[in-house]
Amino acid sequence: MDLNSDLGEGFGVWPLTQDDALLDIVTSANVACGFHAGDPSVLRRVTELATARGVRVGAQVGYRDLAGFGRRFIDMDPAELVNDVIYQIGALDAFARIAGTRVSYVKPHGALYNAIVTHAEQAAAVVDAVKRYDASLPVLGLPGSEWLKQAEAAGLTPVHEAFADRAYTPEGTLVSRRLPGAVVHDPGEVVRRSVRMATEGTVTAVDGSAVKVEPHSLCVHGDTPGAVEIARRVREGLIQAGVEITPFS
Amino acid sequence: MDLNSDLGEGFGVWPLTQDDALLDIVTSANVACGFHAGDPSVLRRVTELATARGVRVGAQVGYRDLAGFGRRFIDMDPAELVNDVIYQIGALDAFARIAGTRVSYVKPHGALYNAIVTHAEQAAAVVDAVKRYDASLPVLGLPGSEWLKQAEAAGLTPVHEAFADRAYTPEGTLVSRRLPGAVVHDPGEVVRRSVRMATEGTVTAVDGSAVKVEPHSLCVHGDTPGAVEIARRVREGLIQAGVEITPFS
Amino acid sequence: MDLNSDLGEGFGVWPLTQDDALLDIVTSANVACGFHAGDPSVLRRVTELATARGVRVGAQVGYRDLAGFGRRFIDMDPAELVNDVIYQIGALDAFARIAGTRVSYVKPHGALYNAIVTHAEQAAAVVDAVKRYDASLPVLGLPGSEWLKQAEAAGLTPVHEAFADRAYTPEGTLVSRRLPGAVVHDPGEVVRRSVRMATEGTVTAVDGSAVKVEPHSLCVHGDTPGAVEIARRVREGLIQAGVEITPFS
Amino acid sequence: MDLNSDLGEGFGVWPLTQDDALLDIVTSANVACGFHAGDPSVLRRVTELATARGVRVGAQVGYRDLAGFGRRFIDMDPAELVNDVIYQIGALDAFARIAGTRVSYVKPHGALYNAIVTHAEQAAAVVDAVKRYDASLPVLGLPGSEWLKQAEAAGLTPVHEAFADRAYTPEGTLVSRRLPGAVVHDPGEVVRRSVRMATEGTVTAVDGSAVKVEPHSLCVHGDTPGAVEIARRVREGLIQAGVEITPFS
Repeated sequence: MDLNSDLGEGFGVWPLTQDDALLDIVTSANVACGFHAGDPSVLRRVTELATARGVRVGAQVGYRDLAGFGRRFIDMDPAELVNDVIYQIGALDAFARIAGTRVSYVKPHGALYNAIVTHAEQAAAVVDAVKRYDASLPVLGLPGSEWLKQAEAAGLTPVHEAFADRAYTPEGTLVSRRLPGAVVHDPGEVVRRSVRMATEGTVTAVDGSAVKVEPHSLCVHGDTPGAVEIARRVREGLIQAGVEITPFS
Repeated sequence: MDLNSDLGEGFGVWPLTQDDALLDIVTSANVACGFHAGDPSVLRRVTELATARGVRVGAQVGYRDLAGFGRRFIDMDPAELVNDVIYQIGALDAFARIAGTRVSYVKPHGALYNAIVTHAEQAAAVVDAVKRYDASLPVLGLPGSEWLKQAEAAGLTPVHEAFADRAYTPEGTLVSRRLPGAVVHDPGEVVRRSVRMATEGTVTAVDGSAVKVEPHSLCVHGDTPGAVEIARRVREGLIQAGVEITPFS
Repeated sequence: MDLNSDLGEGFGVWPLTQDDALLDIVTSANVACGFHAGDPSVLRRVTELATARGVRVGAQVGYRDLAGFGRRFIDMDPAELVNDVIYQIGALDAFARIAGTRVSYVKPHGALYNAIVTHAEQAAAVVDAVKRYDASLPVLGLPGSEWLKQAEAAGLTPVHEAFADRAYTPEGTLVSRRLPGAVVHDPGEVVRRSVRMATEGTVTAVDGSAVKVEPHSLCVHGDTPGAVEIARRVREGLIQAGVEITPFS
Repeated sequence: MDLNSDLGEGFGVWPLTQDDALLDIVTSANVACGFHAGDPSVLRRVTELATARGVRVGAQVGYRDLAGFGRRFIDMDPAELVNDVIYQIGALDAFARIAGTRVSYVKPHGALYNAIVTHAEQAAAVVDAVKRYDASLPVLGLPGSEWLKQAEAAGLTPVHEAFADRAYTPEGTLVSRRLPGAVVHDPGEVVRRSVRMATEGTVTAVDGSAVKVEPHSLCVHGDTPGAVEIARRVREGLIQAGVEITPFS
């Protein structure tokens, strides 16, 4: 099982993600590329640290919206979105190259991630960008999303991810963050859900039913000290359950 | 002789450089990389057009300053400048790759260009960035500048450029734009100076003396229709004088 | 009848609107406030020129999106939109004050203008911003829009505008720019429609029916030399038809 | 004695200054205005909180440089700097007005603060901006600086500030942060220096001599929990020494 987390989401004087601590826990680092967060010095630092520890570097591409941290849907021209994504992957890849590696996968961020679960034109734009840049790059996303379906149809390699701390609907989608109970806060419960997703491929939905998720990667968070501690316990819990923690790419 | 020009300097809804017209004239396109000008869609378009016409794509790297168009010196930490330059080259290179080519050289823009004529730490930063990204990339600049001296010492390939329409001091530096006569406006005179620089390697300085410049590339401008027409006449004048117009890289 | 136009939409080195020419034609200048276009020096210049000519200064508030020129809907938190709008009005008002006047009205720009025709939460946010800043400021918009309805309900003064060069549906809404015939290009026809809207309060819709618009202000464009010439002819046509051209505010 | 501190220096998702805690300690809040830090929602929040507690709101104006947090000197056109400063004051003043107060003073930030200690043209630009916006606004700065000298000559009210935790040269200037010992870290020592500056008007310079500073305001920091605690002790120490803590404006 792969563990992925969003990293490098500081900007200038402002830190955010606990990059150093997370890089001891995850196997795949979704590195912000400068459009929603991440300045060039952050990209350089995180990419070098990740590479030194054998953590894969993924391009966490987002809308150009520092003020909104990429969390606001932007109804942009898909043709421009293609180019915004290429730009971000290329910029991050420069740092990956000088660190002796390459960008290993692509995972959209925030509102873009959510939009392309259903927004066909924007999903097609991100798929087009990855395919043009390097069709061998795996793409990370929500199983059943427009994004992964189109990626697969285009010949890209879709990678299913699940969330260790998010509540699921019986249909296998995430419960909206606007609803109560959307996030699981109890560390023990997060670990138990993670282990079950990794070993049985299922998660208990909000109605109590078992939903098939079969993830290739589990997403953990790292923007607070508390989140890092939970991520660490997820990793340990998986190892104790006999799950091998290894990059998907 | 190579002809280079700044291109792709629009941003969003705002056009600037006459990209299409210039790409029929020059052999090397200094493409803005998004920090002082140039959004991803501009980078894509110019890079594809240039490649289709056999024009080399160079990274025109600048300070992060859209409001000032990169024309204001920023006293930034050289360690951060290294990373800003790597980021820009990588972003442009992504578009070069999908166009079937690669970034072929690096030329700093505006205030950064001027700063590293003498600013040793910032010059070292840009040299370090190019060397880390791809030490085989030639670098374009002013003969005798700190930038080209350090680049050569670091094992990079310095390429001397001269300006078709700028007045020179007897020492071979450019007359400051703040002084009268800094820019030669008469098209015939610009052509004559260009031909002489290309065939004899010299230019007449403001005191009437002949200054050795021996350029590998001549810089022409393209931000107004008038500038494009002068650039066209420079190209034709050089050809009529038997000078072969060919990329340096 | 008032004539309004978008002005001050350059940024840094990039000009856009024909500010000088337009200020001889219109009576109300919708000045960009820096979020979708307009840097502080543009705001200063346009505000001083407008004031010197007796043209009213309005705050043309937009989404924070220079790369997209405010033409892309952003699904932002209405509570943040309130503050983005207050910030923009205040910044422009500083220049109005030093020019000896005040911001005289508010007109949203681009995608925000379009969004709040129907988007109740964002419309409420802009209304709230204007009311908090200065409830005596008139607000310009499309008759029947959520924006003007909520503004009126909140005690603000709604000002109806019509477009000299846009096609109308029988319901009195604008034909989408994505459809053919959305923009009227024939100068004589634009003038005739303007005169009829000003004198009879109606416009011929795409199905040939007469639609009531009864505008307090006509919007003309000024981002190309051709547009300026049409705007001039609209002004002259109105005067010849006996319509007095005077600011609504 | 007035206590001032930089506040509102978060941006979007990124917090920075401990605004709530600081507002219980200081009497003057230097609120970032969006160019080096501070988004509109931060400005709104800090301005309302400050006003509710009787803390004066000052405009902390800076270079337009979010990536560099306004800490990098930008060699910009003074005519543009005038307008950048007016824009920032006006934007903040909008929030002050809706909070029921007004911007009460101006204090430049970071590299701009440092530049105008000696840079006559940029100092003149900031003076010009304040004078045009509201000549009754006091301006905060370093005694003996070009900034305060020009401000006084222009009829503005200069307010001398001293730094509770910075080392001073025998000439009364601050020891550069690049030198060891530039910042006093011992809380007790910071308190003792503050009390002496407030009661005797002097501070012990690095050579042991007593330097006259006679501040009207003491600057305390609030970007870390530790800094807030020191600021609190400075306030308490001053009160215990019989110094009245009250806004200068």
